[in-house]
Parts: sequence; structure tokens; C-alpha cells
Amino acid sequence: MVGIGPGSIADMSSRACAAITGAAVVVGYKVYLELISELLSDQKIIGTGMTQEIDRCQAAVEEALLGKTVAVVSSGDAGIYGMAGLVLELVMQYPEPVRPAVDIVPGISAISAAAAILGAPLMHDFAVISLSDLLTPWEVIENRIEAAAAGDFVVALYNPKSRRRISQIEKVREIMLQYRPSTTPVGIVHHASRTGEKMVLSDLDSFTREHIDMFSLVIIGSSQTYIAEGRMITPRGYSL
Amino acid sequence: MVGIGPGSIADMSSRACAAITGAAVVVGYKVYLELISELLSDQKIIGTGMTQEIDRCQAAVEEALLGKTVAVVSSGDAGIYGMAGLVLELVMQYPEPVRPAVDIVPGISAISAAAAILGAPLMHDFAVISLSDLLTPWEVIENRIEAAAAGDFVVALYNPKSRRRISQIEKVREIMLQYRPSTTPVGIVHHASRTGEKMVLSDLDSFTREHIDMFSLVIIGSSQTYIAEGRMITPRGYSL
Repeated sequence: MVGIGPGSIADMSSRACAAITGAAVVVGYKVYLELISELLSDQKIIGTGMTQEIDRCQAAVEEALLGKTVAVVSSGDAGIYGMAGLVLELVMQYPEPVRPAVDIVPGISAISAAAAILGAPLMHDFAVISLSDLLTPWEVIENRIEAAAAGDFVVALYNPKSRRRISQIEKVREIMLQYRPSTTPVGIVHHASRTGEKMVLSDLDSFTREHIDMFSLVIIGSSQTYIAEGRMITPRGYSL
Repeated sequence: MVGIGPGSIADMSSRACAAITGAAVVVGYKVYLELISELLSDQKIIGTGMTQEIDRCQAAVEEALLGKTVAVVSSGDAGIYGMAGLVLELVMQYPEPVRPAVDIVPGISAISAAAAILGAPLMHDFAVISLSDLLTPWEVIENRIEAAAAGDFVVALYNPKSRRRISQIEKVREIMLQYRPSTTPVGIVHHASRTGEKMVLSDLDSFTREHIDMFSLVIIGSSQTYIAEGRMITPRGYSL
């Protein structure tokens, strides 16, 4: 399980690069495989569409059962909403000694990449929430938004909006406005460290008017977060 | 601002390595400078003790004001409880065009490194909380623990315990036990990706009896987290 970081080879660790170049089989979402094409040579490549996570991981496990070294690539960190959990769940269905061994090579997460582009919004406690309700009931997500708002966490939102999922981000705005001023800074990062990288600084009142899609990461500030000279900063609390 | 990852050069991005080898001055906590000693040659080195964050960052800003390219190293990700925010706060005290430009190079965070060692505990929503009350009132931290517990977040704890800070982790256990069963999995990772790396799997009832110190990262599972064959897994929710 290899986290390839936000997208550029320059953001990958050498351990991740070696795991891919040293594998007999590389499995991943086609778009991610393109990002690392310079690391692919004579490995067997299994690329699938985005929603085919289970097929992809099952294919990886089957190759591993044949005794091959398989690298399954996730963008960002394989361990944060990535493929690491799914593969572990799948291999647990096989008994020892058949069960393939799974090593997880961490990567730079989308949160870290987005935060670096925005400034330093994650200098203090934060919550990470996915707004995708494909696999999670919306009530659970809404309860987490409410809890994160009440706890004054900086909040990082994965999967904030898609073509079919447009009301959820408005609901987040509504809940957060019950706890934080409308001037609370909100940062939006698109395609962090990839072609088309873009960042927007907004506030809780108006951020949902900005372009947000499934390639965006949204970071909502805590009560302490501020914007100075185009950088979003959550102070740690030092007296300067 | 350079995140050097959890400790091994193999976990650093090539962008981070280049930022350090290409700098005229490298500033950091002495222990972290030792971790990257193979990247240091004729750069000017400014190493300080652990609690001297402000001195360290001020020294970096002063070198930058002289026109030098300065790399300030943080372990893990410079943007997560790292030095990025402090340096941004310091440079904002200088007007344009004197103000030094600050680039933030993200790294693999301690959370990602610890999660990879434990299995896949961060496959679903999580909260990250530092238990250090040096710069944050304990009431704020306790409120966040309560909120994270109520929201059924997986909870990652930075700075869980030090020689002088021993009661806080017991208080966390107490609060979490009001919301989650005593069998909830808890993972503890020491020195992730460094000499002396060690991980322990425990549960909410008994994890505070394990060795925990300021080099440990503690991850408390959500209601969905389980342990199978020595791996800590929070399922994403796929039907397998």
C-alpha cells in the first residue's frame, strides 16, 4: 500500500518510489497511475476507474496470492481515506499462512499538501471529515460536523462536493455559522501540487459561492484562525 | 519550512531534501538535525534545544532578512503542530518589501507514520488533538476531547504525556469511556520510523498502563474500529 502524495513525484518519499519500481504488479486508479508514469516500466499494470475500489484491491490481493509483490497506489496517504484499510480487510478473509503480508508506506496527505499551500491553518487541533455519504449515513456526518464545530476544531473537509452532492456543503456552512462568526477564514485548495493547482481564501459566510468539486479540499478555521497577507494561519499560542 | 517526515531519510520527499541541500542556512531542533545529517554539508547550521522554538524561528527570520535562503526543519509535517505557523507569524511583523518570502514544503506527518505502523485506523473521520497545555488552557483541550468523543471520531493524540504531564491522558480515558466501550482499540506508536520504533495495541480500558511519553502518538478507535491479526482497522464502510 503506497501513498504517492498529492501528485508530483517530487512530493513522494524515496521509500514510496522504491516500493513502486520494485513491485512486479502496480495497481491503482488510472489517473493516479498517470501521475507516476515515470516510475512504471516492466511492471504489470492494473488500472481501474475511480469507483472500482473493491475490484482494484481484490485484483491486488489475487496477484499477491500468486506470490507476486504488488504495489497498490493511493493518492495522498494510503492510510487516510485511502486503500490501506480495504486491502487489510480483504486479506483478513484468507487464513495464515496463505494470507498475503501487507506493508503500508505512508505519503504526504492531501490535508498536509493543502495546508502548506494555504499557509499554516493546522498549527492547532483539527478534525478531518469526508462529506461523501456513499458509504456513511448523512446523520453520522452531520453529527461529526456539529461536534467539530462545538469543539472549535479547525475542520478539513474531504470530498466536499460532487456533481450529485451539492447540498451537504451548504449544510456544513449552516451548522458552522451557529458556532463561529461569518468572518471565520475558509481556504479552498484545488489539485494541490498538480497541474491546475489553485487556492482561494474566503470566509464562512461566502465560501460556498466559490468553485468546489471532488478535487477540492476545504479547510475551515477555528475561532483563532486569521488571514494575514494572503496566508491562512491558526496560531499555536506563543507570545511573540 | 521543511517537513522532514517521521525520521528516516527514506520517508522524506525529494522536494524536502532539495530544500535542505540547497539552503545556505539550516535551522532546527538538534535531534532533528541529527536525523538529516547526511543532507548537511557546508550550510550554516543553527541548532537549538527543544523548547526554544521562538529563538529558532527568530534566528531563521534574521538570516532570511540578510538575503539568505534558510531551511527551517520540522519533524513530520511542518504544517501540523510544526514551525510553519510561528515563522509566518514572525515574518508578518516585517513590512513589504522587507518581509522574507516563506515556502512550506509538506512532509509525512507523525499521524500518517503512526497509522501506517498500526494498520489502517484513519480510514474514516478523525480528530487530532495535542494534550500539551503549555500554550493552550486545559479546559479548551478537555472540551475538544469531549466533542471528539461525542462525534465518534477516531482520535489521534499528540504530546500525550511527559514527565510533568501525567494526569491528562487519564482524563482523556475517563471522558472517552463515557462514550465508547472499554474494549475500543487503542494504538500507541513510539519513535515511528526511527531507531527504537515500537507499537502497542491496547484498549480504552487499559492503554494508560502502557508506556507513553512525549515521543508517543496515541490513536483511539471510533465505535467502528477493530483489531484483526495484530492490525488496527477502521473500516471505510464498503460491503465486502
